Amino acid sequence: MSGYAERLHKAILTKGTPALVGIDPRFDQLPEEIQSRASLLPGDELSQQAAAYEEFSCRLIDVIAPLVPAVKPQAAFFEQLGPAGVVALERVIRHARRAGLIVICDAKRGDIGTTAAAYADAYLAGEDPDDAPFAADALTVNPYMGVDTLEPFIRRAIDFGGGIYVLVRTSNPGAGSFQDHRQDDVYLYEKVAREVEALSAEHAGIAQSQYGCVGAVVGATYPEELARLRQQMPHVPLLIPGYGAQGGGAGDVAAAFDSQGLGALVNSSRGINFAYLRQPYLSQFPAEHWEQAIEQATLDMIRDLAQHTPAGQLR
Amino acid sequence: MSGYAERLHKAILTKGTPALVGIDPRFDQLPEEIQSRASLLPGDELSQQAAAYEEFSCRLIDVIAPLVPAVKPQAAFFEQLGPAGVVALERVIRHARRAGLIVICDAKRGDIGTTAAAYADAYLAGEDPDDAPFAADALTVNPYMGVDTLEPFIRRAIDFGGGIYVLVRTSNPGAGSFQDHRQDDVYLYEKVAREVEALSAEHAGIAQSQYGCVGAVVGATYPEELARLRQQMPHVPLLIPGYGAQGGGAGDVAAAFDSQGLGALVNSSRGINFAYLRQPYLSQFPAEHWEQAIEQATLDMIRDLAQHTPAGQLR
Repeated sequence: MSGYAERLHKAILTKGTPALVGIDPRFDQLPEEIQSRASLLPGDELSQQAAAYEEFSCRLIDVIAPLVPAVKPQAAFFEQLGPAGVVALERVIRHARRAGLIVICDAKRGDIGTTAAAYADAYLAGEDPDDAPFAADALTVNPYMGVDTLEPFIRRAIDFGGGIYVLVRTSNPGAGSFQDHRQDDVYLYEKVAREVEALSAEHAGIAQSQYGCVGAVVGATYPEELARLRQQMPHVPLLIPGYGAQGGGAGDVAAAFDSQGLGALVNSSRGINFAYLRQPYLSQFPAEHWEQAIEQATLDMIRDLAQHTPAGQLR
Repeated sequence: MSGYAERLHKAILTKGTPALVGIDPRFDQLPEEIQSRASLLPGDELSQQAAAYEEFSCRLIDVIAPLVPAVKPQAAFFEQLGPAGVVALERVIRHARRAGLIVICDAKRGDIGTTAAAYADAYLAGEDPDDAPFAADALTVNPYMGVDTLEPFIRRAIDFGGGIYVLVRTSNPGAGSFQDHRQDDVYLYEKVAREVEALSAEHAGIAQSQYGCVGAVVGATYPEELARLRQQMPHVPLLIPGYGAQGGGAGDVAAAFDSQGLGALVNSSRGINFAYLRQPYLSQFPAEHWEQAIEQATLDMIRDLAQHTPAGQLR
């Protein structure tokens, strides 16, 4: 069985880019054709919206699957529609897997003991999509409850060839309110980073690879912290949110990569999903050609990362 | 519209106890009759297990609804069964609401901006169960990402008469690995507690009540911290896990209450759910009388809390 980092890097090398596309559907921003088709379906409003999320997400996946190694569906937007939305999430994950993409379910779960193990069972299929109901390759995880609460996720990841991404330094403006709590000279996020590095190095050793299955989320909106954290976590694959709509540029994420251009995925969600509502694509593509706008925005992101980061070597 | 703390305390006073029953189904521990009935249903194994979770949880609710003010379904165990489990969770929440119980969905969600708002929309119905697909009165929330990430949950709670419980000091053995990170003389969990107190006091002021809608999770397994946190958070309703199967006793939670015996809910999950598998109930009740074992374990917990904590005044 291949480890997560090995599978991830194979996908990154195949596509020649570390671009990760977030799947963040919001009903009022979906293309007109999808909104109106959904409104004619039987069932209540939430079921109609869930059908629209599924159609939009699967068509988005079909456009980007030849271009990028991985997608990151955001669980919250699907859960917002209740059980029907969760059914759509499950189908979207499977569609992405069938399209050959690595799927990182962004659900930020965390709990203790057997409860954490239940979340891991739910979301971490790893190599074989039939191993979990929500068949993701990797899951985002919140570390607040302690290192012991990460362990059930890591055990599952190791056993099934999956990965986790632990929140270390998030991309929001208020990230520092607790993450900057500082004992002696060590911020909390650095303390979390040290533990994540130790856990991933241990697994990397087993897998005889540079990277382990325990990744970290580090926001593009804090480029100095990102550069330092990359140095401090040499065995840790990074997931970088905050590029694009949240304000991070390619220059801000350049330090996330190792000397081969590996070791990080850079995420864009709204900037890709709703490219057809934003310039320059809004002027370039008629509304019904929203898939072309998505494709062009993805290609532009890939080029931007290739030009301004070590990921340029991948092509 | 009534605020969450007002509704919660009305329920606590009506039932005369702060006992909270967690709903944590696990298939292999369900009563034999439920397991075998489920195995005869059409559909795949996960659907069968989900039907069993729904039957067990609803019958548990019917037994305890006359006795306790609130229940706390654990989302992880339902999500473990995939979309079918999530459908069961939605129905179990509605069943508990119809039985007149306050429902705290234990899902430990947390994210930034509009993503946090999506989770809040999904789970926080507050006063009217029709306001959210997963119609809980309150939701557990993880603070790691920062105070700004709590705000969308609080706004929703205020607007709909719901509440949130922010993780402050969790009950697991490794809780301290990050929560004890200490700047000057302030542990991280105390820093979180201060922010939670400030947020809840602000809302309590609006509601002209002692307690606001922003609660805190503080484990019974750390009784000294619990006593100090109760003092430091006078406007914050507490949710205390760790009583019973996790090792906390009534003496450990006595300091969680205010002088009227209000301000806290004490949770037991496994000790009630699977009373029929544990002594002394295993010897007292034949296996098919599992509901009586659950009822007796609940009555014993209520008596224990009444005898050893200020909640005795509620009766």
